[in-house]
Amino acid sequence: MDERGLIKAISAILPDGSTADDCAVIPHGGELLLLSTDMLHETTDFPVGMTDAEIGWMAAAVTISDLAGMGSRPLALLLATGLDRPDRLAGITEGAARCCRTYGADLVGGDTDAHTELTLVSTGLGTAEQVVRRRGARVGDVVCVTGSLGGAQAALSGYDDYWERLIAPQPRVAEGLALNAAGATAMMDISDGLAMSLHDMLGVNECGFAVETARLPGPAGVPEAEARAFALSGGGDFELLFTIPPENFPVAGVEATAVGRVVAAHGVWADGVPLPAEGYMHRWG
Amino acid sequence: MDERGLIKAISAILPDGSTADDCAVIPHGGELLLLSTDMLHETTDFPVGMTDAEIGWMAAAVTISDLAGMGSRPLALLLATGLDRPDRLAGITEGAARCCRTYGADLVGGDTDAHTELTLVSTGLGTAEQVVRRRGARVGDVVCVTGSLGGAQAALSGYDDYWERLIAPQPRVAEGLALNAAGATAMMDISDGLAMSLHDMLGVNECGFAVETARLPGPAGVPEAEARAFALSGGGDFELLFTIPPENFPVAGVEATAVGRVVAAHGVWADGVPLPAEGYMHRWG
Repeated sequence: MDERGLIKAISAILPDGSTADDCAVIPHGGELLLLSTDMLHETTDFPVGMTDAEIGWMAAAVTISDLAGMGSRPLALLLATGLDRPDRLAGITEGAARCCRTYGADLVGGDTDAHTELTLVSTGLGTAEQVVRRRGARVGDVVCVTGSLGGAQAALSGYDDYWERLIAPQPRVAEGLALNAAGATAMMDISDGLAMSLHDMLGVNECGFAVETARLPGPAGVPEAEARAFALSGGGDFELLFTIPPENFPVAGVEATAVGRVVAAHGVWADGVPLPAEGYMHRWG
Repeated sequence: MDERGLIKAISAILPDGSTADDCAVIPHGGELLLLSTDMLHETTDFPVGMTDAEIGWMAAAVTISDLAGMGSRPLALLLATGLDRPDRLAGITEGAARCCRTYGADLVGGDTDAHTELTLVSTGLGTAEQVVRRRGARVGDVVCVTGSLGGAQAALSGYDDYWERLIAPQPRVAEGLALNAAGATAMMDISDGLAMSLHDMLGVNECGFAVETARLPGPAGVPEAEARAFALSGGGDFELLFTIPPENFPVAGVEATAVGRVVAAHGVWADGVPLPAEGYMHRWG
């Protein structure tokens, strides 16, 4: 069973709709509180060669990206660390704290434990007056992505110029806030690749998504066919995927590209051909 | 290095005083938001013979207990699960959700991943107008504990009547709120045994603590000397340790026992003899 299958299996136990987005949204005191948690392991999630500080940064960044993907403002982060060696804690904590500061949040605490494999669980708290969910796309909206896609996958495929892109993801916090204010109708961060994210959106919308691969902002300096494949299926970029009425796009201050349209038919298409849900996914034997 | 040593090592990176308590306290919107995270592993933290639902309950309970220990109201909980077998998720989630409901919180989400050893990280969000911290005890206050102590350790030592006590901890949420309102000066939950908790309090207070072991509410039906040892050093009870001015004690609706006094000298004593910091502790080889 893959991770998405598992989540479906427990969705009956959790509150209605709570497994549809990357953050839980809790109305409280006249505003919304957002909570998100991410579990990362050394062998699965951290490319070989990363320093402890880079690992700490990444653990914080993936959670801050979840908060950004709904258009919220990160407030605080906790980091639970299962340590294979106690001397790694300082570097990891320092990297996570630096990432938090960069995005206006505080690393406020955590937990530590011994573990055979380094395991990090970061949990973020954010605030918002309104959020943009994965559900909400409307036929006629443009489908857009921030920044460029496929850089992290390019690094994994040996394009060393993209190493920083892979190990130091930059969550799109300011962009998420601006897109929320500008009327984005649906949004999420692209952690497992664009194709997977489009299918995640498909799962909670009645409409469909048609993208043109020639428009994808792939990694520069990579041969075109490969760049396109990386942009479609490569994980680890942590850009935002969003839909927005065409009259509201572009949004001031947000570097983004329109890559397609929201269509009435329920499906995902790339250049008119059905696009499979392929990309990075956790999988059990 | 033990867990307390590790926490000291990173306290310079985290905000002032943030490692002194079990929850981070974040002033926000005219109130306080509390966040706490706990990492648990099958081999270290879950006694053999527990069902998945019991494991889920316990993971939620330890975090809710941290929120209770500062006198806050649990609002929401997230559960990240590193699964050795995917079919365990439903039972674990169900148990955690039931514990949350019992204490007025919602299980709002989580994350799932594959792991060689079952690993659970629960993160709780609570609210309060004011909190009771570990720091704040005043000379002359009475030292008190809620409920009874040593039952979880009794179960681990073969007293089967205490099995439920061990596997289904009951966080003292209502008690924590009442003690907060009644003017408790210092408070924490006793997760690693009374002796450890008194030393944790000692670390952030200038005063000291003198307890009388004859007053300890140990497990009934266990021979006296053993009961006293369990009550002093046994972990897993999740009762509250608190100090409060004698004129404010007892507190209506809170079942608690005065077991000692806050004294001017800096130390922990049991029956006049220095009490070592012994109890349950995570330790690295």
